[in-house]
This record gives sequence, C-alpha cells and structure tokens, in this order.
Amino acid sequence: MAVYTDVSFEELEGFLAAYDLGEPHVFKGIAEGVSNSNYYLQTAKGAFILTLYEKRVEVEDLPFYIGLMEHLANAGIACPTPVRASDGKLTGTLNKRAAAILTFLQGVSLRRPAPEHCARAGAALADLHAAGASSTMRRANALGHAGWRQLAAECAGEADKIANGLKALIDDELAAQGTAWPAGLLAGIIHADLFPDNVLFMENKVSGLIDFYFACNDVLALDLAVMLNAWCFEEDGAFNLTKGRALISAYEAKRALLPAERAALPLLCRAAALRFLLTRLYDWVNHDPSALVRPKDPREYARRLRFHRNVRGPEAYGL
Amino acid sequence: MAVYTDVSFEELEGFLAAYDLGEPHVFKGIAEGVSNSNYYLQTAKGAFILTLYEKRVEVEDLPFYIGLMEHLANAGIACPTPVRASDGKLTGTLNKRAAAILTFLQGVSLRRPAPEHCARAGAALADLHAAGASSTMRRANALGHAGWRQLAAECAGEADKIANGLKALIDDELAAQGTAWPAGLLAGIIHADLFPDNVLFMENKVSGLIDFYFACNDVLALDLAVMLNAWCFEEDGAFNLTKGRALISAYEAKRALLPAERAALPLLCRAAALRFLLTRLYDWVNHDPSALVRPKDPREYARRLRFHRNVRGPEAYGL
Repeated sequence: MAVYTDVSFEELEGFLAAYDLGEPHVFKGIAEGVSNSNYYLQTAKGAFILTLYEKRVEVEDLPFYIGLMEHLANAGIACPTPVRASDGKLTGTLNKRAAAILTFLQGVSLRRPAPEHCARAGAALADLHAAGASSTMRRANALGHAGWRQLAAECAGEADKIANGLKALIDDELAAQGTAWPAGLLAGIIHADLFPDNVLFMENKVSGLIDFYFACNDVLALDLAVMLNAWCFEEDGAFNLTKGRALISAYEAKRALLPAERAALPLLCRAAALRFLLTRLYDWVNHDPSALVRPKDPREYARRLRFHRNVRGPEAYGL
Repeated sequence: MAVYTDVSFEELEGFLAAYDLGEPHVFKGIAEGVSNSNYYLQTAKGAFILTLYEKRVEVEDLPFYIGLMEHLANAGIACPTPVRASDGKLTGTLNKRAAAILTFLQGVSLRRPAPEHCARAGAALADLHAAGASSTMRRANALGHAGWRQLAAECAGEADKIANGLKALIDDELAAQGTAWPAGLLAGIIHADLFPDNVLFMENKVSGLIDFYFACNDVLALDLAVMLNAWCFEEDGAFNLTKGRALISAYEAKRALLPAERAALPLLCRAAALRFLLTRLYDWVNHDPSALVRPKDPREYARRLRFHRNVRGPEAYGL
C-alpha cells in the first residue's frame, strides 16, 4: 500500500480549480488501496479522498464504480460519495491519471472483528443489497466462473511449487463449480470484496463501507460467502461458528435467504474461497520484488476452500 | 515515503489505553518521513500523528527531539506538540518500536515557493531561533565538520562514478571548510533541515514547522544557509536573488545578522550544500533497490556548492 503517483501542492491546486471546495488545508498521501494512489484532502468544506487510478481496467469501469457510489450514497448507504466538479463531471485527469474526489469517511477497520462486529457488518451488507436493487447500472463480475478458469490456466505451472496438491485442488474445484451458478439465486449489485478492511467502525458501529472497485452484478449470496470467508475464520484456520451465525442472522433479519440461496451457501463459500485463492496465487506468482505491495499468502484460502469442501451443509455456517 | 511498521486497530487501541485521547475515529498510514512510520490519528480530542521510530539513532535522541518540540510549542511555535500519556511519559513502545503521539498540524508544503513564501518561512525561522534560545537542551550536530569527513571517506571510491570530478570537489571543499566554524557566529538550537517540505502553509501563511529530527545545537546562520540552498534555487539551477533577498530580509526584520554572520554566509552556504551533497551521495551509493524510498540526486547539490564557491560575497544572496 503506497502512493504511486506524486502530486505536488501546486498540481493539486490546478486540479481543485475545477471544484468548489476551497483551499486545501491538509493534503497527505495515505497508505491505502493496492493499485491506486490516495490522498487525504481537507478543506473548509470537509474531508475528502483524492484517488488517482493507476490501472487501465479500473479507468474503463470508473463510470460504473463512481456512479454506483453516488447511487448508494443517495440511497442512504454510508459510502464514499463522489464530489462533482463545478461543470458536473465526476472524474477528471491529474498527472495523466484519471482522478476523482470522494468524501472521506471516519472510522477504523478491524483486524480481529468480534461476533458483534460480524453481525453489524452482515446487517450493513443487507442494507447495501437493498440500496443496490434500485440501481440500473451493470458490470459483469470479472472474477466469476470464466475469470477463475483464466487465472487458473495462467498459474497452472506454478501452483504445486507453492503448495503440494494445489493444482489438483484448483482443477477439482473448477470442475465441481461448473460454468454457471445453480438456478434460483437472487442477483443484483454486490460489493464482492467486503473484507474487514473495507468496513469502517466508529464506537463499535458501522460508520462506512469503502472500496467498491470490485463491485459488480452477481448473485447476492456470494457477498455473504465472501464475508464468511473473510470475517469468520480464526488465525489458526478454524471456522468460528458464532461469528458465522452472527453474520448470517443479522443479514437475514433484513432479508431472509431464499431456499435456493441457503442450499447453495456451501458451494458459494467454495466459490468465494476459490476466487481469492486464485487472485492471491496469481499475485504471488507474478510478484515484482521491487513492488511496494507484498503479496498475500494464497495457501490461507486453499485451507478455507478445503474446509468448505468438507462441510455437510449450510448448517455448518450457522444457518 | 512509506509505512514500514504495520499497526492494526487492535494494537493501536492497546497503545491508546495509556493516553486520555478517547476512541480512534480515523487511523491511516500516511506517506511521510523517510525513515519513520507515521499514522494520521483522529479522536474526539483532535487530530494527531502517531510516529513509530525505526532507526536506532533516532531512538537515542528521541528525548531531545520530543522535549524540544514540547519546549518550542510552549514558546508559541506552531510545531507538532507531544501528547503526554496519562502517566506523564512522552514516548511509549508499539510493535517493538519507540512511538510518540504528536498533534497534527494543518497546512500544505509547497513544491515551488514564491518570494512571499520564502519571506514568511524566513520570518518563521527567526521565531524558531528566538524560541530555541530559552531551551537548555543540547544535541551536537551529527552532520557537522566531523560528520562530513566521515561521510566523504565512506563514499570516496564511488563519487567519481556518479559525476566526474565529484571527489575532487568534495576534498577541496572539506579542506576549505577546515575543522570548525569561524569565530563570532551565534549558536543555538537550529532546525537544520528546513526545506519547503517542512514548512506548512495555509491560505499563504505559515501554519506550522515540522520534522525536527535533525534539530541540534549549531550556529544559527547555518539554518539560513540551508534555506537559501533549499528555497532559492530554480529548477534550471539558477539562484533566485529575489527569493534570497526575501528570505534574509524577513529573517533580519526579526533578528539582524551580526557582522561575522554576514561575512560567513557564503562559507555557510557552501557548508550546507556540502552536507546535503554528502548525505545524498551516501544514500545514493548505499541505496537498497528494494527500499521503498527513492534516493535524491546528489548532483543537484554539487551544482549548488559550485555556485556558492564562485560568489564574490554575501551580497550574492541578497544581503
């Protein structure tokens, strides 16, 4: 996590001329985000994040991400709200990068969430899904069935160098997942990456959801599966049933899962584990040692995938 | 500039238990400082910087740096003010590093200061010198005559690989500088690194001076010489006499230079250029390519040193 593109005060002033935000009082590069450059910006009008988008794919999808955050914020979700320039534009260009200003949210992310935090995050997810339902924006999940196969093919030769049997695990799971979701799963806007890093708490209440740069249209319960993976495993690798139950019941208090969603939960948890296993494996294999970001260990998600492959049914998650 | 030591919310909470600052509302790693890890911290009590000191030498001198900032803040200087823990301590330990909490100052540093900014920074330097006069703290300048010789010896074999004639320039200048300052120069607490990065402006007024981790006791006019080097050269290498004059006159409006200080100004400008030439050269030669910080080009200061060696007298700086 680092700042990739340097922005001087004078360059910032030039960019801010297009906005009605006043003079910058604070401007600091912050260590946040894996592929963007982020600056904390404070003016008399409030606190903001200035993001410079470094990767091509993000820039193409920027109208979706920014438009979605504006939609969600208007629907009452505490998420970064894009600030429009005086001419109404949501994004601009700064130091040759696409750039946007969004409101800065107070709150801190937890490294070790307790069951009550899992519950509050689960409820926030249900609110997010409800708010997304009124959006007409669409973006396919680049990390769905086809995306997994492509990542797996690109890493096939390296998997067993990282852990014995990893290639077979991935191949088996890809075969088991097939090429599409089972029927009967409700779809809509999902966050797709709602890890503890991306949920802000203040005084033990959710104060914001951030990082919508994997958001897309896909089955809603996949978001729950991502969270069960990311929030409910302990450092020793064990699944914490109390946390799982807290997360799911708080979600269900706002939207009860359909029978098909409940039945598919183990499969969706496997899919979510596979998705993070594959992206971490890809990042591990393609890691540039001079990069500012250290890759995460893919084996953590191999262990989680194995756990999900062995559960008897949805009750294993606290349903 | 990066965050070297990761601090989780839970680790922060443990550290904050010793302080009376309330719950953290914001906690973000920021890209600031070359060798420390810095976090922006906000609570109901205000905005703060949490610094983890990564280098041994800094830790040894920490009582001086922290004590000095407290002294200066009490004397009315807008500088980071150390926050004492409930037991009165100014520093603690976090993730095996010495750590301190200081107030966060609003303001932005300028990449291209105009003459009016040079004047305001010069006036702020005079205020800093006046406030330092009442301090009884002492720390020798590790980057004085003896320090230069040591750095020069360590880089001797590499200098000419970076620029032809660099070794001879350094040796000549070391010989010319001798082993001590001329007599009659007023000494006291100096900042020793008051580059534009370390002066914050808000609405064109100085809102704070930061980064006291080179502060020490040395001749006061050396600080002016550091600033003439750092604030008054243009990108094309030319010395901007208007900026030099603005800086010095604003300083002199608060404290007139003694005759010996005026006479020594060219020598002090050479000394300041030599100091930054040598530390940049050392960092360049010893750069670890995997490090998160890119070294600065030493040749910029070789050019400035050559300029100072050719001036006719103090009037070349606008005196």
